[in-house]
Amino acid sequence: MMNKRAIVLLSGGIDSATTCAVASSEGFSVYALTFQYGQRHACEVEAARRIASHLRVPHHLIYDLDAKIFARSALISGIPVPKGRNETEMQREIPVTYVPARNTVFLSLALAWAEVMEIPHIFIGVNAVDYSGYPDCRPSFIEAFEKMANLAIKAAVEGKMRIKIHTPLIHLTKGEIIRQGYKLGIDFGLTHSCYDPSPEGFACGECDSCLLRKKGFREAGIPDPTRYVR
Amino acid sequence: MMNKRAIVLLSGGIDSATTCAVASSEGFSVYALTFQYGQRHACEVEAARRIASHLRVPHHLIYDLDAKIFARSALISGIPVPKGRNETEMQREIPVTYVPARNTVFLSLALAWAEVMEIPHIFIGVNAVDYSGYPDCRPSFIEAFEKMANLAIKAAVEGKMRIKIHTPLIHLTKGEIIRQGYKLGIDFGLTHSCYDPSPEGFACGECDSCLLRKKGFREAGIPDPTRYVR
Repeated sequence: MMNKRAIVLLSGGIDSATTCAVASSEGFSVYALTFQYGQRHACEVEAARRIASHLRVPHHLIYDLDAKIFARSALISGIPVPKGRNETEMQREIPVTYVPARNTVFLSLALAWAEVMEIPHIFIGVNAVDYSGYPDCRPSFIEAFEKMANLAIKAAVEGKMRIKIHTPLIHLTKGEIIRQGYKLGIDFGLTHSCYDPSPEGFACGECDSCLLRKKGFREAGIPDPTRYVR
Repeated sequence: MMNKRAIVLLSGGIDSATTCAVASSEGFSVYALTFQYGQRHACEVEAARRIASHLRVPHHLIYDLDAKIFARSALISGIPVPKGRNETEMQREIPVTYVPARNTVFLSLALAWAEVMEIPHIFIGVNAVDYSGYPDCRPSFIEAFEKMANLAIKAAVEGKMRIKIHTPLIHLTKGEIIRQGYKLGIDFGLTHSCYDPSPEGFACGECDSCLLRKKGFREAGIPDPTRYVR
């Protein structure tokens, strides 16, 4: 078990926190990787720090990424975050909170780190709820990325290691993810989901992310520890 | 022709300068993308600026990338650059100047910019000389990246555009690349190749990159305008 190491993409939300706990529970020594890219909800990064500490993650790299290349998304620009949408509206189209090629960029940087650190395992908390809205959360994308990754890096081409992208949440609902994280001892009060928090750090309670979070706790039958504005 | 736009990865070397000129000659309006990532040969970035100006590139984005994630390569760390190697030695193994997952990271950021700017064409100057040494310059890697890219982004998944990775130099030797660039009017004195330039900006003349450059000019039968230390 000593040599099992994994990079885990840790944003500070429910999904990545649960993914991190899953990787630990499977015996991996976790190298958490958090991207700071000028996202409007920068308190996510603070949440990632809290989660890494809470889960006693041995290594945590916070990587600064210049946001100008992603500049048309609501998460990092001035486009208003949609509020109060129902699930049909959320699923009908890819939301404006979609960040162009985000998971591709994140996984590529994780791949560079994986090669440098000689770590073949990369965990990412993509899931079934995001599935409909974000193309880069779908199994077909993850498979294509893994295939490309094993053609991209020296260590894979030389047969020294094979990159494996782990997506333990991909077929779970938000409620199932919360139940799993809860069983693994996560204090979800430390996580952050809201796309549009108040200056005091309260969740807005109305953006897609807050609505999915509230619904997830209801489904899981677990009290929601989040402080919402409404 | 007005609507043909392409992103071109422009490092400031012979290959990317030629790729840029090829894209222009094919009628594309060029959006050059240069990465500043703490590479030891930072004068590359200055060369990229000179080339963009020389080729009258309408748009040029210089993007800062934190180098810490690539930290084991000779190009950005303290590992000595190998000098005076012959071609057999260069081809025998992937060189220490290899940057982990570099083209994957560069193409992923280009992909993000492509989606934001709604530009389906991405040009990269990978070629047959790099082919043996760097896995992420091979056709199989480029094909796998293109496939992944078209599963990754909203515009592709919605059928609005299809990402095409162009590699016009992939099967050319250094000599052929130089001849092509020369025909297209490039002043190669503006480009930079050396991995280990002197403080005055002269090329060392002995690293793999200088040796390939010298050989390329000899093969092309074109005078080498480079100022070498030796």
